[in-house]
Amino acid sequence: MKIRRLAIIGVGLIGGSLARALRRAGSVEQIVGCGRGRENLEKAQQLGVIDRYTHDIGEAVQGADMVFLATPLGAMKSAFAAMKDHLAEDAVITDGGSCKGSVVNDAREVFGDELSRLVPGHPIAGTEKNGVEASFAELYENRRVILTPLENNSEESIARVRRMWEDCGAEVSEMSVEHHDEVLAATSHLPHMLAFGLVDTLARMKENDEIFRYAAGGFRDFTRIASSNPVMWRDICVANGPALSRMLSAFAEEMNDLAQTIAAGDGDHLLEVFSRAKEARDRFVDGLKG
Amino acid sequence: MKIRRLAIIGVGLIGGSLARALRRAGSVEQIVGCGRGRENLEKAQQLGVIDRYTHDIGEAVQGADMVFLATPLGAMKSAFAAMKDHLAEDAVITDGGSCKGSVVNDAREVFGDELSRLVPGHPIAGTEKNGVEASFAELYENRRVILTPLENNSEESIARVRRMWEDCGAEVSEMSVEHHDEVLAATSHLPHMLAFGLVDTLARMKENDEIFRYAAGGFRDFTRIASSNPVMWRDICVANGPALSRMLSAFAEEMNDLAQTIAAGDGDHLLEVFSRAKEARDRFVDGLKG
Repeated sequence: MKIRRLAIIGVGLIGGSLARALRRAGSVEQIVGCGRGRENLEKAQQLGVIDRYTHDIGEAVQGADMVFLATPLGAMKSAFAAMKDHLAEDAVITDGGSCKGSVVNDAREVFGDELSRLVPGHPIAGTEKNGVEASFAELYENRRVILTPLENNSEESIARVRRMWEDCGAEVSEMSVEHHDEVLAATSHLPHMLAFGLVDTLARMKENDEIFRYAAGGFRDFTRIASSNPVMWRDICVANGPALSRMLSAFAEEMNDLAQTIAAGDGDHLLEVFSRAKEARDRFVDGLKG
Repeated sequence: MKIRRLAIIGVGLIGGSLARALRRAGSVEQIVGCGRGRENLEKAQQLGVIDRYTHDIGEAVQGADMVFLATPLGAMKSAFAAMKDHLAEDAVITDGGSCKGSVVNDAREVFGDELSRLVPGHPIAGTEKNGVEASFAELYENRRVILTPLENNSEESIARVRRMWEDCGAEVSEMSVEHHDEVLAATSHLPHMLAFGLVDTLARMKENDEIFRYAAGGFRDFTRIASSNPVMWRDICVANGPALSRMLSAFAEEMNDLAQTIAAGDGDHLLEVFSRAKEARDRFVDGLKG
Protein backbone atom coordinates (compact mmCIF):
# COMPACT_ATOMS: atom_id res chain seq x y z
CA MET A 1 0.00 0.00 0.00
CA LYS A 2 1.38 3.35 -1.09
CA ILE A 3 1.69 6.28 1.26
CA ARG A 4 -0.96 8.76 0.09
CA ARG A 5 0.60 11.85 1.50
CA LEU A 6 3.85 12.01 3.48
CA ALA A 7 4.51 15.06 5.63
CA ILE A 8 8.18 15.55 6.46
CA ILE A 9 8.87 17.95 9.30
CA GLY A 10 12.52 18.92 8.86
CA VAL A 11 13.76 18.40 5.30
CA GLY A 12 17.50 17.89 5.79
CA LEU A 13 19.81 14.92 5.29
CA ILE A 14 17.57 12.46 7.14
CA GLY A 15 14.14 13.69 5.98
CA GLY A 16 15.32 14.45 2.46
CA SER A 17 16.91 11.03 2.02
CA LEU A 18 13.70 9.33 3.20
CA ALA A 19 11.74 11.31 0.61
CA ARG A 20 14.16 10.45 -2.18
CA ALA A 21 14.24 6.75 -1.29
CA LEU A 22 10.45 6.43 -1.15
CA ARG A 23 10.04 8.25 -4.44
CA ARG A 24 12.58 5.98 -6.09
CA ALA A 25 10.70 2.96 -4.73
CA GLY A 26 7.39 4.36 -6.00
CA SER A 27 6.02 4.07 -2.46
CA VAL A 28 4.57 7.54 -2.04
CA GLU A 29 2.13 9.71 -3.97
CA GLN A 30 2.72 13.14 -2.54
CA ILE A 31 5.32 14.67 -0.22
CA VAL A 32 4.82 17.87 1.75
CA GLY A 33 7.87 19.45 3.36
CA CYS A 34 7.87 21.63 6.43
CA GLY A 35 10.62 23.63 8.08
CA ARG A 36 11.74 27.09 9.08
CA GLY A 37 14.27 27.95 6.38
CA ARG A 38 12.66 29.03 3.10
CA GLU A 39 15.85 28.58 1.11
CA ASN A 40 16.30 24.93 2.06
CA LEU A 41 12.64 24.13 1.32
CA GLU A 42 12.77 25.87 -2.06
CA LYS A 43 15.88 23.88 -2.88
CA ALA A 44 14.06 20.69 -1.84
CA GLN A 45 11.18 21.52 -4.17
CA GLN A 46 13.54 22.38 -7.05
CA LEU A 47 15.33 19.08 -6.56
CA GLY A 48 12.01 17.24 -6.65
CA VAL A 49 12.55 15.89 -3.14
CA ILE A 50 9.21 17.37 -2.02
CA ASP A 51 6.14 18.42 -4.03
CA ARG A 52 5.31 21.50 -2.00
CA TYR A 53 6.16 23.11 1.30
CA THR A 54 4.82 25.19 4.15
CA HIS A 55 6.33 26.70 7.28
CA ASP A 56 3.24 25.71 9.28
CA ILE A 57 3.25 22.24 10.86
CA GLY A 58 -0.54 22.15 11.23
CA GLU A 59 -0.93 22.82 7.53
CA ALA A 60 1.79 20.33 6.59
CA VAL A 61 0.13 17.36 8.28
CA GLN A 62 -3.36 18.01 6.90
CA GLY A 63 -4.51 15.02 4.91
CA ALA A 64 -1.22 13.17 5.49
CA ASP A 65 -1.48 9.46 6.33
CA MET A 66 2.22 9.40 7.34
CA VAL A 67 4.07 12.08 9.29
CA PHE A 68 7.84 11.90 9.69
CA LEU A 69 9.55 14.11 12.26
CA ALA A 70 13.20 14.85 11.61
CA THR A 71 13.42 17.86 13.90
CA PRO A 72 16.05 18.24 16.64
CA LEU A 73 15.13 16.43 19.86
CA GLY A 74 14.66 19.78 21.59
CA ALA A 75 11.94 20.77 19.10
CA MET A 76 9.90 17.54 19.15
CA LYS A 77 7.42 18.60 21.82
CA SER A 78 6.44 21.85 20.15
CA ALA A 79 6.13 20.01 16.82
CA PHE A 80 3.75 17.46 18.39
CA ALA A 81 1.72 20.30 19.89
CA ALA A 82 1.54 22.13 16.56
CA MET A 83 0.22 19.10 14.67
CA LYS A 84 -2.13 17.72 17.35
CA ASP A 85 -5.40 19.29 16.12
CA HIS A 86 -4.67 18.90 12.42
CA LEU A 87 -3.91 15.21 12.00
CA ALA A 88 -5.90 13.07 9.60
CA GLU A 89 -7.99 10.21 11.00
CA ASP A 90 -5.60 7.57 9.66
CA ALA A 91 -2.34 9.46 10.31
CA VAL A 92 0.60 7.55 11.75
CA ILE A 93 3.46 9.58 13.18
CA THR A 94 7.04 8.37 13.32
CA ASP A 95 10.36 10.11 13.88
CA GLY A 96 14.12 9.85 13.47
CA GLY A 97 15.30 10.94 16.92
CA SER A 98 18.55 9.46 18.31
CA CYS A 99 16.96 8.99 21.74
CA LYS A 100 13.53 7.47 22.16
CA GLY A 101 12.63 8.00 25.83
CA SER A 102 12.46 11.77 25.58
CA VAL A 103 10.45 11.66 22.34
CA VAL A 104 7.88 9.34 23.92
CA ASN A 105 7.67 11.54 27.03
CA ASP A 106 7.16 14.64 24.90
CA ALA A 107 4.48 12.88 22.85
CA ARG A 108 2.73 11.58 25.95
CA GLU A 109 2.49 15.07 27.39
CA VAL A 110 0.96 16.40 24.18
CA PHE A 111 -1.20 13.50 22.99
CA GLY A 112 -2.22 11.82 26.25
CA ASP A 113 -4.59 9.02 25.29
CA GLU A 114 -3.80 9.43 21.62
CA LEU A 115 -0.16 8.49 22.13
CA SER A 116 -0.82 5.35 20.07
CA ARG A 117 -0.52 7.47 16.90
CA LEU A 118 3.27 7.57 17.42
CA VAL A 119 5.47 4.64 16.36
CA PRO A 120 8.92 5.86 17.49
CA GLY A 121 11.84 5.05 15.21
CA HIS A 122 15.54 5.65 14.68
CA PRO A 123 17.42 5.12 11.40
CA ILE A 124 21.07 4.36 12.25
CA ALA A 125 22.46 6.32 9.35
CA GLY A 126 23.86 9.72 8.59
CA THR A 127 26.87 11.59 7.38
CA GLU A 128 28.61 14.69 8.74
CA LYS A 129 26.73 16.84 6.22
CA ASN A 130 23.48 18.68 6.74
CA GLY A 131 20.70 20.07 4.57
CA VAL A 132 18.59 18.71 1.75
CA GLU A 133 21.44 19.02 -0.76
CA ALA A 134 23.35 16.39 1.19
CA SER A 135 20.43 13.93 1.01
CA PHE A 136 20.47 10.89 -1.28
CA ALA A 137 18.16 7.95 -1.98
CA GLU A 138 20.70 5.30 -0.95
CA LEU A 139 21.36 6.57 2.59
CA TYR A 140 19.27 3.83 4.24
CA GLU A 141 20.23 0.90 2.01
CA ASN A 142 21.31 -2.02 4.19
CA ARG A 143 21.36 0.26 7.21
CA ARG A 144 19.53 -0.56 10.40
CA VAL A 145 16.36 1.17 11.51
CA ILE A 146 15.20 0.54 15.08
CA LEU A 147 11.51 0.86 15.91
CA THR A 148 10.48 1.05 19.56
CA PRO A 149 6.74 0.34 19.36
CA LEU A 150 4.54 1.47 22.25
CA GLU A 151 2.09 -0.71 24.14
CA ASN A 152 -1.01 0.66 22.48
CA ASN A 153 0.32 0.96 18.92
CA SER A 154 -1.87 -1.00 16.52
CA GLU A 155 -0.25 -3.82 14.57
CA GLU A 156 -1.24 -1.97 11.44
CA SER A 157 0.54 1.27 12.42
CA ILE A 158 3.74 -0.59 13.20
CA ALA A 159 3.51 -2.50 9.91
CA ARG A 160 3.07 0.73 7.94
CA VAL A 161 6.16 2.32 9.46
CA ARG A 162 8.15 -0.88 9.02
CA ARG A 163 7.17 -1.11 5.37
CA MET A 164 8.15 2.51 4.78
CA TRP A 165 11.69 1.83 5.95
CA GLU A 166 11.93 -1.52 4.18
CA ASP A 167 10.97 0.26 0.96
CA CYS A 168 14.07 2.42 1.53
CA GLY A 169 16.21 -0.73 1.65
CA ALA A 170 16.71 -0.66 5.43
CA GLU A 171 16.79 -3.59 7.82
CA VAL A 172 14.18 -2.96 10.52
CA SER A 173 14.41 -4.26 14.10
CA GLU A 174 12.23 -3.68 17.12
CA MET A 175 13.21 -3.21 20.75
CA SER A 176 11.97 -1.40 23.83
CA VAL A 177 12.48 2.34 24.28
CA GLU A 178 14.72 1.74 27.31
CA HIS A 179 16.87 -0.83 25.54
CA HIS A 180 17.31 1.41 22.52
CA ASP A 181 18.52 4.24 24.71
CA GLU A 182 21.03 1.97 26.49
CA VAL A 183 22.38 0.52 23.26
CA LEU A 184 22.76 3.91 21.60
CA ALA A 185 24.37 5.39 24.71
CA ALA A 186 27.07 2.72 24.36
CA THR A 187 27.64 2.69 20.60
CA SER A 188 27.06 6.29 19.66
CA HIS A 189 26.55 8.77 22.48
CA LEU A 190 29.51 7.62 24.59
CA PRO A 191 32.01 7.69 21.67
CA HIS A 192 30.85 11.20 20.82
CA MET A 193 31.45 12.32 24.40
CA LEU A 194 34.98 10.87 24.30
CA ALA A 195 35.79 12.54 20.99
CA PHE A 196 34.37 15.93 22.01
CA GLY A 197 36.03 15.58 25.42
CA LEU A 198 39.45 14.65 24.03
CA VAL A 199 39.57 17.47 21.52
CA ASP A 200 38.36 19.93 24.14
CA THR A 201 40.96 18.75 26.65
CA LEU A 202 43.74 19.14 24.08
CA ALA A 203 42.42 22.51 22.92
CA ARG A 204 42.57 23.80 26.50
CA MET A 205 46.19 22.76 26.98
CA LYS A 206 48.67 25.59 27.18
CA GLU A 207 50.49 24.72 23.99
CA ASN A 208 47.46 23.51 22.06
CA ASP A 209 48.69 24.67 18.64
CA GLU A 210 51.77 22.56 19.04
CA ILE A 211 49.80 19.60 20.38
CA PHE A 212 47.60 19.45 17.31
CA ARG A 213 50.59 19.92 15.01
CA TYR A 214 51.97 16.53 16.06
CA ALA A 215 48.70 14.64 15.81
CA ALA A 216 48.63 12.07 13.02
CA GLY A 217 46.09 10.28 10.86
CA GLY A 218 44.78 8.08 13.65
CA PHE A 219 43.84 11.19 15.58
CA ARG A 220 41.91 12.54 12.61
CA ASP A 221 39.79 9.38 12.34
CA PHE A 222 39.34 9.14 16.08
CA THR A 223 38.08 12.70 16.39
CA ARG A 224 36.00 12.91 13.21
CA ILE A 225 32.76 12.71 15.21
CA ALA A 226 33.87 15.76 17.26
CA SER A 227 33.03 17.78 14.13
CA SER A 228 29.35 16.89 14.59
CA ASN A 229 26.66 19.49 15.21
CA PRO A 230 27.07 20.78 18.82
CA VAL A 231 23.39 21.77 19.18
CA MET A 232 22.19 18.34 18.11
CA TRP A 233 24.56 16.71 20.58
CA ARG A 234 23.54 19.00 23.41
CA ASP A 235 19.94 17.89 22.74
CA ILE A 236 20.90 14.21 22.67
CA CYS A 237 22.79 14.51 25.97
CA VAL A 238 19.90 16.24 27.68
CA ALA A 239 17.41 13.76 26.20
CA ASN A 240 19.39 10.64 27.06
CA GLY A 241 20.85 12.08 30.27
CA PRO A 242 20.33 9.19 32.71
CA ALA A 243 21.58 6.36 30.47
CA LEU A 244 24.45 8.39 29.06
CA SER A 245 25.75 9.87 32.31
CA ARG A 246 25.69 6.40 33.89
CA MET A 247 27.61 4.92 30.96
CA LEU A 248 30.14 7.75 30.90
CA SER A 249 30.82 7.49 34.66
CA ALA A 250 31.32 3.75 34.35
CA PHE A 251 33.72 4.28 31.47
CA ALA A 252 35.66 6.94 33.40
CA GLU A 253 36.02 4.37 36.19
CA GLU A 254 37.41 1.83 33.67
CA MET A 255 39.90 4.40 32.41
CA ASN A 256 41.02 5.11 35.96
CA ASP A 257 41.66 1.41 36.43
CA LEU A 258 43.57 1.31 33.16
CA ALA A 259 45.66 4.31 34.27
CA GLN A 260 46.61 2.37 37.41
CA THR A 261 47.46 -0.72 35.39
CA ILE A 262 49.73 1.42 33.21
CA ALA A 263 51.33 3.15 36.20
CA ALA A 264 52.02 -0.28 37.71
CA GLY A 265 53.57 -1.44 34.43
CA ASP A 266 51.38 -4.58 34.35
CA GLY A 267 52.12 -5.54 30.76
CA ASP A 268 50.30 -8.87 30.89
CA HIS A 269 47.03 -7.25 31.85
CA LEU A 270 47.45 -4.53 29.22
CA LEU A 271 48.13 -7.10 26.53
CA GLU A 272 44.98 -8.96 27.54
CA VAL A 273 42.79 -5.84 27.28
CA PHE A 274 44.28 -4.68 23.97
CA SER A 275 44.10 -8.16 22.40
CA ARG A 276 40.46 -8.61 23.41
CA ALA A 277 39.63 -5.17 22.01
CA LYS A 278 41.46 -5.75 18.74
CA GLU A 279 39.71 -9.07 18.27
CA ALA A 280 36.27 -7.55 18.93
CA ARG A 281 36.97 -4.61 16.66
CA ASP A 282 38.21 -6.78 13.81
CA ARG A 283 35.13 -8.99 14.22
CA PHE A 284 32.91 -5.90 14.13
CA VAL A 285 34.46 -4.72 10.86
CA ASP A 286 34.11 -8.20 9.35
CA GLY A 287 30.45 -8.09 10.37
CA LEU A 288 29.96 -4.80 8.53
CA LYS A 289 31.41 -6.31 5.36
CA GLY A 290 29.30 -9.47 5.61
CA MET B 1 76.78 13.68 1.97
CA LYS B 2 75.51 10.23 1.13
CA ILE B 3 75.02 7.55 3.76
CA ARG B 4 77.73 4.98 3.04
CA ARG B 5 76.05 2.03 4.68
CA LEU B 6 72.69 2.07 6.43
CA ALA B 7 71.86 -0.73 8.85
CA ILE B 8 68.15 -1.14 9.45
CA ILE B 9 67.24 -3.24 12.48
CA GLY B 10 63.62 -4.26 11.90
CA VAL B 11 62.66 -4.13 8.21
CA GLY B 12 58.91 -3.58 8.39
CA LEU B 13 56.64 -0.72 7.42
CA ILE B 14 58.74 1.95 9.15
CA GLY B 15 62.23 0.62 8.38
CA GLY B 16 61.31 -0.53 4.86
CA SER B 17 59.76 2.83 3.97
CA LEU B 18 62.88 4.66 5.17
CA ALA B 19 65.02 2.42 2.95
CA ARG B 20 62.80 2.96 -0.09
CA ALA B 21 62.66 6.74 0.41
CA LEU B 22 66.45 7.08 0.77
CA ARG B 23 67.07 4.91 -2.27
CA ARG B 24 64.67 6.99 -4.30
CA ALA B 25 66.44 10.15 -3.17
CA GLY B 26 69.83 8.65 -4.03
CA SER B 27 70.98 9.32 -0.48
CA VAL B 28 72.38 5.92 0.41
CA GLU B 29 74.93 3.59 -1.08
CA GLN B 30 74.24 0.32 0.66
CA ILE B 31 71.47 -0.97 2.94
CA VAL B 32 71.83 -3.95 5.27
CA GLY B 33 68.65 -5.36 6.82
CA CYS B 34 68.45 -7.20 10.11
CA GLY B 35 65.57 -9.03 11.76
CA ARG B 36 64.39 -12.37 13.04
CA GLY B 37 62.04 -13.51 10.27
CA ARG B 38 63.88 -14.93 7.25
CA GLU B 39 60.83 -14.72 5.00
CA ASN B 40 60.33 -10.98 5.53
CA LEU B 41 64.04 -10.27 4.98
CA GLU B 42 64.14 -12.34 1.80
CA LYS B 43 61.11 -10.48 0.55
CA ALA B 44 62.84 -7.18 1.39
CA GLN B 45 65.86 -8.24 -0.63
CA GLN B 46 63.74 -9.41 -3.56
CA LEU B 47 61.91 -6.09 -3.57
CA GLY B 48 65.24 -4.25 -3.63
CA VAL B 49 64.47 -2.54 -0.31
CA ILE B 50 67.72 -3.88 1.17
CA ASP B 51 70.90 -5.11 -0.49
CA ARG B 52 71.57 -7.97 1.92
CA TYR B 53 70.52 -9.22 5.30
CA THR B 54 71.64 -10.95 8.45
CA HIS B 55 69.90 -12.13 11.61
CA ASP B 56 72.84 -10.91 13.69
CA ILE B 57 72.71 -7.30 14.89
CA GLY B 58 76.46 -7.15 15.52
CA GLU B 59 77.13 -8.22 11.94
CA ALA B 60 74.49 -5.85 10.56
CA VAL B 61 76.04 -2.71 12.03
CA GLN B 62 79.60 -3.50 10.98
CA GLY B 63 80.88 -0.70 8.76
CA ALA B 64 77.59 1.16 8.90
CA ASP B 65 77.79 4.92 9.35
CA MET B 66 74.04 5.10 10.10
CA VAL B 67 72.06 2.61 12.19
CA PHE B 68 68.27 2.83 12.30
CA LEU B 69 66.36 0.89 14.96
CA ALA B 70 62.76 0.08 14.13
CA THR B 71 62.37 -2.66 16.72
CA PRO B 72 59.56 -2.76 19.28
CA LEU B 73 60.26 -0.61 22.36
CA GLY B 74 60.59 -3.75 24.46
CA ALA B 75 63.48 -4.99 22.28
CA MET B 76 65.52 -1.79 22.14
CA LYS B 77 67.80 -2.53 25.06
CA SER B 78 68.89 -5.94 23.83
CA ALA B 79 69.44 -4.46 20.36
CA PHE B 80 71.71 -1.76 21.81
CA ALA B 81 73.63 -4.41 23.74
CA ALA B 82 74.03 -6.58 20.65
CA MET B 83 75.49 -3.76 18.54
CA LYS B 84 77.63 -2.10 21.21
CA ASP B 85 80.96 -3.75 20.39
CA HIS B 86 80.52 -3.78 16.62
CA LEU B 87 79.79 -0.16 15.79
CA ALA B 88 81.99 1.73 13.31
CA GLU B 89 83.96 4.73 14.52
CA ASP B 90 81.65 7.21 12.73
CA ALA B 91 78.38 5.38 13.35
CA VAL B 92 75.34 7.42 14.37
CA ILE B 93 72.39 5.53 15.82
CA THR B 94 68.80 6.73 15.58
CA ASP B 95 65.44 5.04 16.08
CA GLY B 96 61.73 5.25 15.39
CA GLY B 97 60.30 4.53 18.83
CA SER B 98 56.96 6.13 19.83
CA CYS B 99 58.31 6.98 23.28
CA LYS B 100 61.73 8.55 23.78
CA GLY B 101 62.34 8.43 27.54
CA SER B 102 62.52 4.65 27.70
CA VAL B 103 64.76 4.42 24.62
CA VAL B 104 67.22 6.91 26.13
CA ASN B 105 67.22 5.05 29.46
CA ASP B 106 67.86 1.75 27.70
CA ALA B 107 70.67 3.28 25.67
CA ARG B 108 72.22 4.92 28.74
CA GLU B 109 72.35 1.59 30.56
CA VAL B 110 74.10 -0.05 27.63
CA PHE B 111 76.33 2.71 26.29
CA GLY B 112 77.11 4.73 29.40
CA ASP B 113 79.55 7.44 28.31
CA GLU B 114 79.05 6.61 24.66
CA LEU B 115 75.37 7.59 24.82
CA SER B 116 76.17 10.48 22.48
CA ARG B 117 76.08 8.04 19.57
CA LEU B 118 72.28 7.98 19.81
CA VAL B 119 70.17 10.77 18.30
CA PRO B 120 66.64 9.66 19.31
CA GLY B 121 63.88 10.21 16.75
CA HIS B 122 60.25 9.53 16.03
CA PRO B 123 58.61 9.70 12.60
CA ILE B 124 54.90 10.53 13.10
CA ALA B 125 53.72 8.27 10.33
CA GLY B 126 52.38 4.80 9.84
CA THR B 127 49.45 2.77 8.63
CA GLU B 128 47.59 -0.15 10.19
CA LYS B 129 49.64 -2.54 8.08
CA ASN B 130 52.86 -4.29 9.01
CA GLY B 131 55.77 -5.90 7.22
CA VAL B 132 58.07 -4.84 4.41
CA GLU B 133 55.43 -5.45 1.75
CA ALA B 134 53.37 -2.62 3.27
CA SER B 135 56.30 -0.18 3.03
CA PHE B 136 56.44 2.58 0.44
CA ALA B 137 58.81 5.44 -0.41
CA GLU B 138 56.20 8.18 0.14
CA LEU B 139 55.30 7.30 3.74
CA TYR B 140 57.26 10.20 5.22
CA GLU B 141 56.49 12.87 2.64
CA ASN B 142 55.25 16.00 4.40
CA ARG B 143 55.00 14.06 7.64
CA ARG B 144 56.59 15.23 10.84
CA VAL B 145 59.66 13.65 12.36
CA ILE B 146 60.57 14.66 15.89
CA LEU B 147 64.20 14.46 17.01
CA THR B 148 64.95 14.67 20.72
CA PRO B 149 68.71 15.36 20.73
CA LEU B 150 70.69 14.56 23.85
CA GLU B 151 73.00 16.93 25.66
CA ASN B 152 76.20 15.41 24.38
CA ASN B 153 75.13 14.71 20.78
CA SER B 154 77.48 16.43 18.36
CA GLU B 155 76.01 19.01 16.01
CA GLU B 156 77.22 16.85 13.17
CA SER B 157 75.37 13.72 14.36
CA ILE B 158 72.14 15.64 14.72
CA ALA B 159 72.60 17.19 11.27
CA ARG B 160 73.18 13.79 9.69
CA VAL B 161 69.98 12.33 11.15
CA ARG B 162 68.04 15.47 10.22
CA ARG B 163 69.27 15.30 6.65
CA MET B 164 68.33 11.63 6.39
CA TRP B 165 64.71 12.42 7.23
CA GLU B 166 64.60 15.55 5.11
CA ASP B 167 65.79 13.46 2.17
CA CYS B 168 62.64 11.35 2.74
CA GLY B 169 60.50 14.49 2.38
CA ALA B 170 59.74 14.81 6.09
CA GLU B 171 59.52 17.98 8.16
CA VAL B 172 61.93 17.65 11.07
CA SER B 173 61.45 19.33 14.47
CA GLU B 174 63.40 19.10 17.69
CA MET B 175 62.16 19.02 21.27
CA SER B 176 63.18 17.55 24.60
CA VAL B 177 62.64 13.90 25.41
CA GLU B 178 60.18 14.80 28.20
CA HIS B 179 58.18 17.15 26.02
CA HIS B 180 57.94 14.59 23.22
CA ASP B 181 56.57 12.01 25.61
CA GLU B 182 53.95 14.45 26.96
CA VAL B 183 52.83 15.54 23.50
CA LEU B 184 52.57 11.99 22.20
CA ALA B 185 50.74 10.84 25.33
CA ALA B 186 48.09 13.45 24.52
CA THR B 187 47.77 13.08 20.76
CA SER B 188 48.41 9.40 20.23
CA HIS B 189 48.71 7.24 23.33
CA LEU B 190 45.61 8.59 25.09
CA PRO B 191 43.32 8.22 22.03
CA HIS B 192 44.54 4.64 21.64
CA MET B 193 43.67 3.90 25.29
CA LEU B 194 40.17 5.31 24.78
CA ALA B 195 39.58 3.30 21.61
CA PHE B 196 40.92 0.05 23.09
CA GLY B 197 39.01 0.75 26.32
CA LEU B 198 35.72 1.52 24.61
CA VAL B 199 35.75 -1.57 22.42
CA ASP B 200 36.77 -3.73 25.35
CA THR B 201 34.01 -2.30 27.54
CA LEU B 202 31.41 -2.97 24.85
CA ALA B 203 32.79 -6.43 24.16
CA ARG B 204 32.40 -7.32 27.83
CA MET B 205 28.75 -6.24 27.94
CA LYS B 206 26.25 -9.04 28.27
CA GLU B 207 24.65 -8.53 24.89
CA ASN B 208 27.80 -7.56 23.06
CA ASP B 209 26.81 -9.07 19.70
CA GLU B 210 23.74 -6.92 19.67
CA ILE B 211 25.61 -3.84 20.82
CA PHE B 212 28.02 -4.01 17.89
CA ARG B 213 25.21 -4.73 15.45
CA TYR B 214 23.77 -1.27 16.03
CA ALA B 215 27.06 0.59 15.82
CA ALA B 216 27.31 2.87 12.79
CA GLY B 217 30.02 4.43 10.62
CA GLY B 218 31.13 6.92 13.27
CA PHE B 219 31.93 4.03 15.57
CA ARG B 220 34.06 2.37 12.91
CA ASP B 221 36.20 5.48 12.44
CA PHE B 222 36.40 6.12 16.15
CA THR B 223 37.60 2.62 16.92
CA ARG B 224 39.92 2.08 13.92
CA ILE B 225 43.00 2.51 16.12
CA ALA B 226 41.75 -0.30 18.38
CA SER B 227 42.79 -2.66 15.57
CA SER B 228 46.43 -1.71 16.17
CA ASN B 229 49.05 -4.21 17.28
CA PRO B 230 48.40 -5.08 20.96
CA VAL B 231 52.04 -6.02 21.68
CA MET B 232 53.32 -2.73 20.32
CA TRP B 233 50.80 -0.84 22.45
CA ARG B 234 51.61 -2.80 25.56
CA ASP B 235 55.25 -1.77 25.03
CA ILE B 236 54.31 1.89 24.50
CA CYS B 237 52.19 1.92 27.67
CA VAL B 238 54.93 0.40 29.75
CA ALA B 239 57.55 2.71 28.19
CA ASN B 240 55.53 5.92 28.58
CA GLY B 241 53.83 4.82 31.82
CA PRO B 242 54.20 7.95 33.96
CA ALA B 243 53.11 10.53 31.36
CA LEU B 244 50.34 8.34 29.96
CA SER B 245 48.81 7.21 33.26
CA ARG B 246 48.79 10.85 34.45
CA MET B 247 47.07 11.99 31.24
CA LEU B 248 44.55 9.14 31.33
CA SER B 249 43.61 9.82 34.97
CA ALA B 250 43.14 13.50 34.22
CA PHE B 251 40.95 12.65 31.26
CA ALA B 252 38.87 10.22 33.33
CA GLU B 253 38.33 13.08 35.79
CA GLU B 254 37.12 15.31 32.94
CA MET B 255 34.73 12.60 31.78
CA ASN B 256 33.35 12.29 35.31
CA ASP B 257 32.69 16.03 35.32
CA LEU B 258 31.01 15.75 31.93
CA ALA B 259 28.85 12.89 33.21
CA GLN B 260 27.70 15.15 36.05
CA THR B 261 26.98 18.00 33.67
CA ILE B 262 24.88 15.63 31.57
CA ALA B 263 23.08 14.23 34.61
CA ALA B 264 22.29 17.80 35.70
CA GLY B 265 20.97 18.59 32.21
CA ASP B 266 23.18 21.69 31.94
CA GLY B 267 22.69 22.26 28.22
CA ASP B 268 24.50 25.60 28.11
CA HIS B 269 27.70 24.10 29.47
CA LEU B 270 27.45 21.10 27.13
CA LEU B 271 26.97 23.38 24.14
CA GLU B 272 30.03 25.35 25.16
CA VAL B 273 32.22 22.22 25.39
CA PHE B 274 30.96 20.71 22.13
CA SER B 275 31.27 23.99 20.21
CA ARG B 276 34.82 24.57 21.42
CA ALA B 277 35.75 21.00 20.45
CA LYS B 278 34.15 21.20 17.02
CA GLU B 279 35.94 24.46 16.32
CA ALA B 280 39.33 23.03 17.38
CA ARG B 281 38.78 19.86 15.39
CA ASP B 282 37.73 21.71 12.23
CA ARG B 283 40.79 23.96 12.64
CA PHE B 284 43.00 20.88 13.03
CA VAL B 285 41.69 19.35 9.80
CA ASP B 286 42.16 22.65 7.95
CA GLY B 287 45.74 22.66 9.25
CA LEU B 288 46.35 19.19 7.82
CA LYS B 289 45.15 20.33 4.39
CA GLY B 290 47.25 23.52 4.44
